Amino acid sequence: MAALTRKTRNIRLIIAYDGTGYSGWQRQKNGTTIQGEIEHFLHHITREPVVLHGAGRTDAGVHADGMCAHFISHTRINCADLQSGLNSLLPGSIRIVSVEDTDLHFHSRFHAKGKHYQYSLYLGKVHPPRLRLYSLHIPFTINLQIIRDCLQLIEGTHDFSSFENSGSRDKSVRGGKGAVRTIYLARLAEKSATELNFDFKGDGFLRQMIRNMVGTLLDAGRGRITVAEFSTALQAKDRTKGGPTAPAHGLCLKRVFY
Amino acid sequence: MAALTRKTRNIRLIIAYDGTGYSGWQRQKNGTTIQGEIEHFLHHITREPVVLHGAGRTDAGVHADGMCAHFISHTRINCADLQSGLNSLLPGSIRIVSVEDTDLHFHSRFHAKGKHYQYSLYLGKVHPPRLRLYSLHIPFTINLQIIRDCLQLIEGTHDFSSFENSGSRDKSVRGGKGAVRTIYLARLAEKSATELNFDFKGDGFLRQMIRNMVGTLLDAGRGRITVAEFSTALQAKDRTKGGPTAPAHGLCLKRVFY
Repeated sequence: MAALTRKTRNIRLIIAYDGTGYSGWQRQKNGTTIQGEIEHFLHHITREPVVLHGAGRTDAGVHADGMCAHFISHTRINCADLQSGLNSLLPGSIRIVSVEDTDLHFHSRFHAKGKHYQYSLYLGKVHPPRLRLYSLHIPFTINLQIIRDCLQLIEGTHDFSSFENSGSRDKSVRGGKGAVRTIYLARLAEKSATELNFDFKGDGFLRQMIRNMVGTLLDAGRGRITVAEFSTALQAKDRTKGGPTAPAHGLCLKRVFY
Repeated sequence: MAALTRKTRNIRLIIAYDGTGYSGWQRQKNGTTIQGEIEHFLHHITREPVVLHGAGRTDAGVHADGMCAHFISHTRINCADLQSGLNSLLPGSIRIVSVEDTDLHFHSRFHAKGKHYQYSLYLGKVHPPRLRLYSLHIPFTINLQIIRDCLQLIEGTHDFSSFENSGSRDKSVRGGKGAVRTIYLARLAEKSATELNFDFKGDGFLRQMIRNMVGTLLDAGRGRITVAEFSTALQAKDRTKGGPTAPAHGLCLKRVFY
């Protein structure tokens, strides 16, 4: 029984991608996805059926610098060769940043302690072509102090139902927590006079939560709602009280914490 | 004769573009070009036949932050409306950065005193997806000091035939100069440990001259040729002595000087 001589391995990947043109992370019957592409080439390389488990899903058009994923395999191919093999087969829009053997019990989703997401804005009058797919163009004036006042309200532990889009919540992950999440950091950083980034770090994020928060923060920044109204919206635990959903292309999953 | 009441205008544009997927600047019968796209929408807006004169051509895949171009028109539409009209019609990969009326005698190509081009390198092991279309990935080790020694040889006035690709040289611009150009600045700047930029400023550049210089500089950086051999290649005034042509996607026209 030659198969028994093969060791079971749990292999962990860090993945960067340009989400433009992809139907998001999660494998679909129709539409090209990040998970689907990587599984396809892993199968090609290992000649095994492969199920790749990601730390979470990202929406169509959302980018990642540090998505984490794992798969169980019996391949004898070493990590360096798996990385170079995948990177030579995958399109340049998906890169395998690292490959390593990890504990057999490690699970990229169940064991994730938190995530860092960044949402990028471009404030200048004309959106530079090379930033157009990676930042939201804000051609109107926004009040950064009002946005920062709202961001302070987001930090901490709250029920974020007002910023959760309808759709399946993955109840297997955080059983009794419902829509309660802890946000460790919610900041607006000025990279330059025109390039600004929202940084959000938290123990977890609901479906489209960051895009809904950013949309509502920008409503506050342009004076459509006050800080008090932002606070009321957050406390309402009611999606109809939250603001609009910001576009996907400004968002990037920077890192998953374990 | 109503037409006579219309003033002749010379309108100058500054244009930024992501050259990915375009067949370069210059209008072509087959293939989408930057010039072709802008002329198309200028015609649509002004309802006049428009010929747009650029400061120079850029190859397929080359980007620009500050291409300059002008066109003669009798339109009554003001500059701000021309800009917003063009930007609302053009794809996001082409942006009109500014529009202004200029002297009737101004010519974007004949009056250009110099240009600034930047060529971007990425030195890390894995090319980040969002930089893949805007920098050349260098997965091997290069010696920056050797490259800098070669760059010093480039600064000054030289016959750059060794770095000129075959094809029509525009003799109308610099009549008796042949392949002699003056390079004011040839530098390698380290934006970060992995992101490096070549900056070249000069009174003019021959066809594919920068891409040929960069290809040869990288040959020196990885030890394929010595600084002395680089010098010999430059002095040979013979394209067969120069090195390979670096890919288009690392190159960007930053600015045209008048």
